This record gives sequence, structure tokens and C-alpha cells, in this order.
Amino acid sequence: MHPENPANTPLWHKLHTHAAHMQHPENHLQHLLDAPNRLQENALRGGGLFYDFSRQRINARTRELLLELAAERKLALRFAAMMRGEKVNITEQRAALHTACRSFSQSPVLLDGTDVLAEIRQVRNQIRRFSAQVRSGEVTGSSGEPFRHVVVVGIGGSYLGTQFVSTALADRADGKIKLHYLSNVDIHNFGRVVSAIDPQTTLWVVISKSYTTAETLANARQAAAYMEAQGLDFAKHLVTVTSKGSPGDDPHANPALQSFHMFDFIGGRYSVSSAVGGVPLSLYLGYGCFEAFLKGAEEMDQHALNTPPAENLPLTAALIAVWNNNFLGYPAQAIIPYATPLAKLAPHIQQLNMESNGKSASIHGQKLSIDTGMIIFGEPGTNAQHSFFQLAHQGRPFPIDFIGVIHPQYPQFDARSRQVSNHQELWANLIAQPAALAEGRTSEDAARCFPGNRPSSTILLQDLAPENIGRLLAFYEARTVFESFVWGTNAFDQFGVELGKSLANGNRREIALKNDNPDYNFEKADPIARFYLQTLFKGKW
Amino acid sequence: MHPENPANTPLWHKLHTHAAHMQHPENHLQHLLDAPNRLQENALRGGGLFYDFSRQRINARTRELLLELAAERKLALRFAAMMRGEKVNITEQRAALHTACRSFSQSPVLLDGTDVLAEIRQVRNQIRRFSAQVRSGEVTGSSGEPFRHVVVVGIGGSYLGTQFVSTALADRADGKIKLHYLSNVDIHNFGRVVSAIDPQTTLWVVISKSYTTAETLANARQAAAYMEAQGLDFAKHLVTVTSKGSPGDDPHANPALQSFHMFDFIGGRYSVSSAVGGVPLSLYLGYGCFEAFLKGAEEMDQHALNTPPAENLPLTAALIAVWNNNFLGYPAQAIIPYATPLAKLAPHIQQLNMESNGKSASIHGQKLSIDTGMIIFGEPGTNAQHSFFQLAHQGRPFPIDFIGVIHPQYPQFDARSRQVSNHQELWANLIAQPAALAEGRTSEDAARCFPGNRPSSTILLQDLAPENIGRLLAFYEARTVFESFVWGTNAFDQFGVELGKSLANGNRREIALKNDNPDYNFEKADPIARFYLQTLFKGKW
Repeated sequence: MHPENPANTPLWHKLHTHAAHMQHPENHLQHLLDAPNRLQENALRGGGLFYDFSRQRINARTRELLLELAAERKLALRFAAMMRGEKVNITEQRAALHTACRSFSQSPVLLDGTDVLAEIRQVRNQIRRFSAQVRSGEVTGSSGEPFRHVVVVGIGGSYLGTQFVSTALADRADGKIKLHYLSNVDIHNFGRVVSAIDPQTTLWVVISKSYTTAETLANARQAAAYMEAQGLDFAKHLVTVTSKGSPGDDPHANPALQSFHMFDFIGGRYSVSSAVGGVPLSLYLGYGCFEAFLKGAEEMDQHALNTPPAENLPLTAALIAVWNNNFLGYPAQAIIPYATPLAKLAPHIQQLNMESNGKSASIHGQKLSIDTGMIIFGEPGTNAQHSFFQLAHQGRPFPIDFIGVIHPQYPQFDARSRQVSNHQELWANLIAQPAALAEGRTSEDAARCFPGNRPSSTILLQDLAPENIGRLLAFYEARTVFESFVWGTNAFDQFGVELGKSLANGNRREIALKNDNPDYNFEKADPIARFYLQTLFKGKW
Repeated sequence: MHPENPANTPLWHKLHTHAAHMQHPENHLQHLLDAPNRLQENALRGGGLFYDFSRQRINARTRELLLELAAERKLALRFAAMMRGEKVNITEQRAALHTACRSFSQSPVLLDGTDVLAEIRQVRNQIRRFSAQVRSGEVTGSSGEPFRHVVVVGIGGSYLGTQFVSTALADRADGKIKLHYLSNVDIHNFGRVVSAIDPQTTLWVVISKSYTTAETLANARQAAAYMEAQGLDFAKHLVTVTSKGSPGDDPHANPALQSFHMFDFIGGRYSVSSAVGGVPLSLYLGYGCFEAFLKGAEEMDQHALNTPPAENLPLTAALIAVWNNNFLGYPAQAIIPYATPLAKLAPHIQQLNMESNGKSASIHGQKLSIDTGMIIFGEPGTNAQHSFFQLAHQGRPFPIDFIGVIHPQYPQFDARSRQVSNHQELWANLIAQPAALAEGRTSEDAARCFPGNRPSSTILLQDLAPENIGRLLAFYEARTVFESFVWGTNAFDQFGVELGKSLANGNRREIALKNDNPDYNFEKADPIARFYLQTLFKGKW
């Protein structure tokens, strides 16, 4: 299972040759779509979702070659190895067991001789009990009043997944608890959060695996100072989510109501199924809702694990992403959910995918000669149609994932405009856009000419139940991992952020020196850094 | 001033040759940055902003060639023509006078013999009076209570600019009025808005130039039905922002408290300085704050108009964008403000720029042979560092605009962590990231190797005063327009959205037929559309 660079294979060259053939005008999507049964042959149902890739620039031969690639790159075997706890994160010698976090199976997952499922169940039970106690008012802050506000203090993977899920499920919140996010070290983030809370009824949930994240610790420090200034005991308003044995888990260093453990086999960007998502989501929505979300994710994990490649949704989506990226040459991909509650899906998948696969080294430390991760961006539709779809239709093309929801909440708002309901108007557009992008339209006037041949997929959810949010999340997680198996990248490390951190440490030291000594003039900084450091202290450029 | 395709010129070829030269290892940014005075020679101050492009992959020769391009493409002349009211939007035979909306000059701007400034002043006065009356409680809804909630009903350019500005200035709101956005036709958007308002104290601001936008009319219809169901007189809770003579301006068709005019010389994506932004922003922040915002924008307009190309900030930024796009081949650009209040800048500029320049036809209707608009995306820093910066450092490179703010609000929150304040920690990172991207770092281990040579600019604002938000907006607007002058695109039309609308119209008709006749089975739809239409009605796939 040694992943060589996939580019040095006859199959990779065959795919390039085939891609050149698919560029011919007779393979324009407009013609591909003429094939009878185009949809039936290019759509899959599984794991609770529907996935239509009929508007991708592929034919039967493309799928055949991509399935060969799946076999050659051992996608199914490696996914199984990941799920059973092999140390697939080789560079850090760790397992990647986010799937275990949503397993309700009784068979153990052994890691270095310990059953991780037992530990995970323990944390889930702790979350269930604690969230019920907070929501019932049994556990209170130092003033004795029930908690009404929860502030998630965490950055990157410590909040993006939770923000996606909490936004998706906000209509199910009973309003007992208001949820706030304090991610950015920018003091405006802190200032806005404290303007929106009532300190006496606020619980701070500080989330950091290592409990050394600079931004999170700085914000936790501000929070402590703020609460103390209000005469409140911060320890009675704090829980931490962190690794066992970290400073955040030490009751002397960081006294707190409770500490919830996360594990070194869970990477931040894959952590929403762990206590990282579990604590805030259970406080906000109730533990039952969080568990339903986990069960949906588990269903998709089992689909991804057990379904043959040709019928496997996330695996197929990964192969298509590779096809679009490496063979058709698209550098970016958009995610456009036709559902406002999914507004935070794109920012979450942006992190998940770009941090997992934005690499130029193979998992074994060789420089890769192929492009890996794509740029991911997106906004909900139809909003995006009135924003950047001009470029999608007539400018630089990029593949799109359209996402539709069959049953809306709020059926009571049924006023009709132009003889249709709002939800029907939404679907009229959801159905129209992939067709317009694929088929295009010719015109004598270049300004009104639509070249078409612009690929997209459509994913359907039955509704916005927590199970479906779990399924959608697990679909994109599995897709990301399958992509990394093709490219030979390690989807679980992120050494690319180290250099920036290291230079920021240097700047912080310079600033600290100046804080101590107003005469210090940044002699050690390079000229450009010195200019900015001086600007910061002088207060003008 | 006939804009030919810029690619068919000796200068364009010269730029390509020069770009090939800049790809050589000796022109790696790491070496370019060694030049003495690199920052001094590659930074500009003007229009109230500071703009540092020293970390762009350019040298003195690049700037020379780009300034030749500016002259050849007559950027300065064409900008002046736009500002004095020439019909630069040729395809629609319209002027593009967003700059007039923030002019406080006494000299008239004549359009077809009428002074547009007089009309604009009239609308501004109307906004000033009305917003003061609402904020003082003199004008109330049908229950006689003062308005406490304003819902902006509008999509695309009718809300993205306003959302950017209102988010940037939220710390200045006195809390009298809460602002909500109802953009998406998705009924979840409506459901969430009505969960957050109190109908008796809600004012709906319906914004549509033509008053025919499908999404906006559908939402206005829902709002009317909802208000009537509460026993409230919708006409007493409604103002419209629309063209003179549109259905929204007709007191019989759409009775309202007031109607504010926008003009056909203002495109949606350039409209935040008009009544489109003026009405909601003045209600939310007070008219004085809106006017300060306009004055900042005017200052940048005057800078863009009057400053020679070599010292002109937005013109230089446009030339660099063209250089990065057409000669260095970057398909995307990120905007990363190190300031949470600027969180909605990237979504706004995404629309502004991608809708303006995502074209493949020249303004005179010829097919262009060059790439035009780029993909624009972004999130605030340091959040982005913990999200997609892995890819920025080690994956697929893309240029970045970093934005810094010297003076934060909330100086009272001054707790220190690692000997620095939050704002200092933020700047330690703001200074570090462009350096890390540019310089890189070599390592024996490919996973820890940073290729560097990744370009960025840094823009500084003194603080988050409304004037600076206006300057920043006008900077990006002018940059977008200058880019279009280079590429020969029309930055003011958007024919690329027509095909999708036309197909959606067809789907809407199919749905309406089925609403009328349950036996209808979408015989006229193509097979894929039929499947989705059936799914919508059956409620399952």
C-alpha cells in the first residue's frame, strides 16, 4: 500500500490522453446530455443522499478509467485501514479516527491495545449529562442563574464545523441558550461578543487540542479578565475541550466546571463529531439532536466503507474532483447550497479540503509533480446567481456542487408569487443553473453567447434533519480523504502553517521587547517588518 | 478611445516576455526583497489609505511596462469620462455614475441635459429626513410603536454592499434599530427573519431597481401576507427603493410610507452609495454616519481621478491584478482583512469584481482571447490562517490582499497574553504572513519545505471610521473599473445571468402548470429537469 506519485503510471497518462479526447467539440456536455439514460447512468443513491453527476464532463470510458484509478490507488482498502485505526497519518504517527466518534457499534476499535470506542462513549455520556444539567438549570454560573449564553472560544477546526452544524440546525434550537463564536484574536471579535452576552449567564467553552493555540489562549485570557472585572468566578463559567493532560485539562492551571477530552487521533478539521462539536452543539440544541447528527454521519461512513467503488458516493465525488483538477485543469470549485441554513457549509469544507489536500509533498515526503488541492469557495443559491455567477457562465469556468433540499421547514409561509411558492421558485432556479452551465446557448452577439460545457453535480437531501446534516458532513469528509488517497497526500497533517507561526513568534517577541522598553526600535526585524512594527506603535504610517 | 482586444499589441507580448523572465529563480521574491528601498519604492499613500505591493512579483521594469499599458489603454482618460457621465456602459447605453452618489461638489454632472447631482441631493435629503423621523419615533408603523427592526429585502447588489458596510460599522450602531437581511428566496431565510423580529415594530425596505426581481418580489409577497396575518397594515410598514416609475414607485400597485429613487446610471453592485445603501444604513446608523462613509468614498474617487498613474492606488492595484492574472497565470485572488468587522468585504468584492469582469466578450461585442475576471474569495485573518492557508503556503498559489487596521476599537480590553495585547498578536500575524508567503523556507523534508514566491499586497486603514470604510469600498470599485478598461470588458452589464433566468422561467411555468393540475407530468421538460420537478412534487427521489 505504498503510495507512489500517481503521475508516474501508465494509467495517469491514459487519463490525460482521454481528457484531451473529451476536450473535442463532440464531447461538449450539450452532446453528452443527449445520451438516453444520461441521468440514470450518472447518479447514485446511498448513505441517505442522492448524487447526480450527469452534468460532469465524463462518459462511460471516463468512469471506467477513474474506477481503475480507484483500484490502483487502493482507495477502498485505505479507507478501511483508516476506519479500523491504522496510523494513516504517517508524518505524525497517528490514527485518524473521526469516524469512531460517530460509531455506535459494539465491536471495539483498538488503538495501541485500547478500545477507543469505550473512551468516546465515556465522553459522549459526559456531554449528555452536562448539557442536560446546564439546560435544566441544575448547573449554573457563580451567580446561581441558569446559563443563557455559550461562547465557543476556538479557531479553525475548533469552530468551523460546529458553526456549520449550528447554523444548519438553528431552526431546531429551543432558544434556551444563545451560541456565540469567539475565534479571531482580533479584539473586535471579543468586543462584539461581550456586547451580545450577559456575563452572569455566560458559559465559555474553550477549545484547543494542545491548549497552546495563541489566539484561543489570548481570548480565554480576555474572557477571564472580563469576567473577573464583573466580580464573577471564571472557573464557574468555564469548560474546556482539550487533550487529556494538556494545560486546559489541569484543574490547577485552568480551574473549570468540567474538562472534556479530545484525542490525538482526531484532527481539528475532522473534529465536529467529537467533544469539539459535541459540547457546544449539545448545549445549544440538546444532546439528542447532536446524537442524531452523529447517526447520520455514521450511516454515510458505513456507506463509504462498504459500498463498491462504482456505487460509492464520496469515492465517486473524489474521482470526479481529481478528474476536474488534474485532467481538465480546473483550479477551483464552488459549493452552492440552495438552502440558507447551509450557508456555513462552504467555509467549513474550504478548511476541511484545502487544509487537508493543499500540499505539495506526498505522505512519504517526496515532492509531488501534480496539482493537489483546489480552491473551494461558495455562497448559498440563489444569492450566488446574483453575485458571482456572471463569471461562472461567461468568465473563467469552475465546477460546482449544487445542493438541494426537498422538504423545507416553514411550510406555513405559503404565499405564492408568479403562481409558485418560494420553495418552488428556489427549485426552479436549482434545476435551471446546472442545465444553463452545461448546455450554454449560442448567439451572434458575443456578449449574449454562453459557451456552456461547464460541469456541475447536484446533491439532494430529503430535509434539514440533523441526520442529513451528518450525512452531508461525512460525505465531504470521506470525499476529502479519498482525494488524498489518489494524490498520495497526508490529509491529516498541516505543516504548511508552521512558517507563518514561526515568523509571528518573532514579531511577537519584537513587540514584547518594545512593550517593555519604549526606546526599542526593532533593530532585529527586517526592513519591511520594522516599518509595520513602527506603524503599529506610532499609530500612523 | 476604441478599446481593441489588448492582447493584439506589441506591449502585451512584451509583458509576456518579461513575465517569462520574472519566472527565473533569480527573480524569486526572496531576492527581489533584498533590494534596498524595496518597500519605499513599492508602496503608495493616497485617498486616505496605505498600499504596499512590495511583495508582488514585480520589479522596476514590470512597473514601467504596466504604466505603459495604463497609458495605452487610456485608463485615466476613461475613468474621467466615467465620472463626468459619459455612457461608458455601451451595451445598455447608460452612464455609470456611482461616483456622483458620493459627490458633495457644487459643479453639476450633466446627463442628457439634467444635473444628476441635484436629483441625488434630493434623495439624500429625503433619506436624512426619513431616517431621523423613524429613529426619533415620529414615523411609526400601524400600531403606533416606534420601529425597532428594519428588514432589507433585496438580493445581490441590493444588499451585499450594505451588508459589508453595516457589518463594518456595527460597533457604531446605537441599538435603536436592528438590521436584518432577507435576500434569498429560500423560505428558510424568511422563516429565520420572522423568528427574529417583532412585526409591530418592523419596517420592510424592499429594494429592486426594476421592481421585477423574482426573489425580491416573492419575499415582499411573503412579508405582506405575514404582516396582514398579524392584522397590520403592510403599507405602513414598507418603504421601497426603486427606479422612478417602476411598479415599486406606484402608490396604487405598492402603497408604501415612502419610495426612494435609484437611477439607471447606478448598477446594483455599485449601488451602496445610493439610496440602496443609504436608506438601511441611515436607519441603522444614523444619516451622519452614512454621509461620513460617502465622504471617504469621495476622497478616494478624487484620488483615483486626479492622481498620476504611478501614484494612483486603485489604478496600480488594477495593473497588478492584470499582471497576476494574465502574465503570471493566477486564476484566483483572496482578500484577507485582519479585522473581524470587515468579514463581509470579500463577499461584496466577490460580487463587485466577478460580476463586473467575469466576461468573455469585449465591450464592443468581440470575443476576447484573454482571461478576464478572477475568482475572488476570502475570510478574515487570523481565522484564514487556521483554515485554507495550508494551501496558500504549500499548495496552489494565489495572490492575497492583506488588510490591516492600525487603531482598534475596544481599547479597554487590554489583557495581555504572551506579553502582548490581542491587537498586537493580530499584527504579529499580519506582518508574518506576507513575509512567509514571499520568502518561503527550504528544508530537506518536502513536507516542511515552503517554496515561497507567493505574492501579496498589504492595505492599511487608520481605523474603522465610516470614512475609511468608504475609502476602502471606493478603492475596490475603482480597481475593478480600471481592470475592465485594461481588458476591454464592460464592467457595468451582466448578460451572463440571463440564460439561467430564462431556464428558471421555463421551470417556473412547469411548476405552475402542475400546481393547477395535479395530473400534469412535465411533458415539456427535458428528462433531467423532469426528474427534479417530479422529485419536488413527490417529495422524494
